[in-house]
Amino acid sequence: MDAIDVITAFWTAVTARDWARFGALLAPDVVYELPQTRERVRGREAYVRFNAQYPGDWDLAPICIVGSGRHGASWIRFAVDGGPDQTGISFVDLDDAGLIARITDFWPVPYEPPPGREHLVERY
Amino acid sequence: MDAIDVITAFWTAVTARDWARFGALLAPDVVYELPQTRERVRGREAYVRFNAQYPGDWDLAPICIVGSGRHGASWIRFAVDGGPDQTGISFVDLDDAGLIARITDFWPVPYEPPPGREHLVERY
Repeated sequence: MDAIDVITAFWTAVTARDWARFGALLAPDVVYELPQTRERVRGREAYVRFNAQYPGDWDLAPICIVGSGRHGASWIRFAVDGGPDQTGISFVDLDDAGLIARITDFWPVPYEPPPGREHLVERY
Repeated sequence: MDAIDVITAFWTAVTARDWARFGALLAPDVVYELPQTRERVRGREAYVRFNAQYPGDWDLAPICIVGSGRHGASWIRFAVDGGPDQTGISFVDLDDAGLIARITDFWPVPYEPPPGREHLVERY
């Protein structure tokens, strides 16, 4: 299984709340990081718990999964408690056994464009 | 050239301000979108101008480039006028000729974590 296969299986397991299948994709010493909040989760057990106990009634769907070999990325749509769609982006590294060793997550949110480039773009 | 090669050449050209080489990587009808601001740039000429005229003295470096075939993604470090490092993430699609047909850019920024998951994470 290359990165696209593993990331696809990852989101299938999360969507199904199948935490056994989810855990089986993870290296024992997996590291999950959120650079925007500087939060980190270390280890398979803790990272399964982070997902299984995540607050709220959430639902998600992958929009795009890319990669090859041991490195890939995904872009998902995520919503909690019927709220607006959020965007989640994950960069994923596999170890030599094809297990997920590192996940780096980003959650971009809407913002107003900075001044100075109005003449270069259209709005949609 | 697959997606990793093209995205690598893309960032090399941008870093060098080599707009001729940059433009040669783009499909004539390339579409660039920023979902967070709902800005869009259509067409090779406009997208070269968007980059060439981008305000400020910026510098950047790729952190991670992933992909295969016609689809890939990059994660870059970007700074303007000596300011703090920003994170730029791009999902890139190539057309049948191997030219860049679509770029979707995300700019995640720091934020405070939502309450309710303090027991599941460490901070760094």
